[in-house]
Amino acid sequence: MASPPLSLSLSIFLLLSPLISSASSQPFIRLPTEATKGKSTVDDDDLYCSSWHLAVETNNAGSWKTIPTRCRSYAQDYMTGQRYMSDSEIAANFSLAHASSVEIARDGKDAWVFDVDETLLSNLKYYEDHGFGILDGDVNHVLIKILISNNTEPSEIFDDDSFNAWVDLAVAPAIPASLKLYNELKQMGFKIFLLTGRSESQRNVTAKNLLFAGYTDWERLILRGHSDEGTKAIAYKSERRSELLDEGYRIQGNSGDQWSDLQGFAVAIRSFKLPNPMYYIA
Amino acid sequence: MASPPLSLSLSIFLLLSPLISSASSQPFIRLPTEATKGKSTVDDDDLYCSSWHLAVETNNAGSWKTIPTRCRSYAQDYMTGQRYMSDSEIAANFSLAHASSVEIARDGKDAWVFDVDETLLSNLKYYEDHGFGILDGDVNHVLIKILISNNTEPSEIFDDDSFNAWVDLAVAPAIPASLKLYNELKQMGFKIFLLTGRSESQRNVTAKNLLFAGYTDWERLILRGHSDEGTKAIAYKSERRSELLDEGYRIQGNSGDQWSDLQGFAVAIRSFKLPNPMYYIA
Repeated sequence: MASPPLSLSLSIFLLLSPLISSASSQPFIRLPTEATKGKSTVDDDDLYCSSWHLAVETNNAGSWKTIPTRCRSYAQDYMTGQRYMSDSEIAANFSLAHASSVEIARDGKDAWVFDVDETLLSNLKYYEDHGFGILDGDVNHVLIKILISNNTEPSEIFDDDSFNAWVDLAVAPAIPASLKLYNELKQMGFKIFLLTGRSESQRNVTAKNLLFAGYTDWERLILRGHSDEGTKAIAYKSERRSELLDEGYRIQGNSGDQWSDLQGFAVAIRSFKLPNPMYYIA
Repeated sequence: MASPPLSLSLSIFLLLSPLISSASSQPFIRLPTEATKGKSTVDDDDLYCSSWHLAVETNNAGSWKTIPTRCRSYAQDYMTGQRYMSDSEIAANFSLAHASSVEIARDGKDAWVFDVDETLLSNLKYYEDHGFGILDGDVNHVLIKILISNNTEPSEIFDDDSFNAWVDLAVAPAIPASLKLYNELKQMGFKIFLLTGRSESQRNVTAKNLLFAGYTDWERLILRGHSDEGTKAIAYKSERRSELLDEGYRIQGNSGDQWSDLQGFAVAIRSFKLPNPMYYIA
């Protein structure tokens, strides 16, 4: 880069002087947080759980099966408090900012891919009633932790019947920020593809629930067919996105609450991770 | 999956009954947070800034140039408080858990790649003294926001001299959790590669600073050469990782505070995002 003007160089020098002198008189610069050294920050549940949650959202946690016991109330508070709504809202805002930067072509091939559960629809009510569930690799194999009571250890049972019964009700509400984003994208001219781990047999109830929640006019609802059974979500979703690319679509954006919605191959130009500290799908 | 035993089916039925009945009598299931509907959560600075920070850490924010004005004190509090240490610690814990799952071969080809600034070394002291800086795509072109005082708008100057002067001091301390992880990985038999956006001309001071902070016995310190000038960090780092793969190394893990440390091509088997709400490098 070009040299800064003389007056700025002088400012830098003046600002640097105390730094240089303090550094030379004090060779080891102390991190301000070193006051807490010795006491591990992981002793504090709320601090630990906030950090655990960040690790989940950044995918540092990788594959995980259960919410740490000490973080169960954190997860519940998060999901039912303002942070979940706020985090979803900011994710939608950044999605919209990206969408606004896309020059929509007239060929109708600018696409946006949405996952369904915990992306467009919220199953929070189900997880509140049944304890926070954990998914074992495949959305068809739902391992639900049923909390016998809030004060006892959960008993774990391997179950998809109860979740499927919930899906059949078709009453999951929209995540408000996602519905707003969805409508804005539609209006901007994006073709909307819904790519879900739900099975083909759940097509009708899923469409019914989406309409109930206020979602309309999607281009295509893609569900797991027979041939996708046993395929990991990340591979199944990558394959389906790849088919969209083959059809000439440009996947400008992809919104999902799982990293397996967003990673793999045929990834979107920009991917947006919605928060979900309740369960993990590989 | 196999059907659950009869007793479990019964439990599910019993647990589902109230859900089904309440759903049928109350067709629209209310999100618990809907109480706050109408009032945007983004009105609350702390809530907004926590969500903004999450968006930065998940890369939802994409390329960003400045900390939102309203989040400047959030960023400062975060960096100087317990959360930064805790988040770094949990990131290191998950890194170590992954490393422990790797079966280290005897060929000496299991590698771990670390970025340097805000990954191994903390420049927090610099940013505290100079205001939180913003990087413009290239680590050589550092746009420093100098806060004339905490109460006035910052004046922005385009500057790398002051950061380079700080680098020349070679007194940046280690991020404690990273130093611990580094030593554990070394002991496990990983070959450590340091891949930094700093320039080749800073090799000596960088090595000096790393030793000062307690880092020893890295396999290689890779810096930007003349031919890398003007290359975006994500491309430069991908190319260098690709060369490691060509040499037969298996990049089992990669730690960095920027998504440009971790994404692109020749990515590691697992990548670990360290927190950094201070600046963004493309």
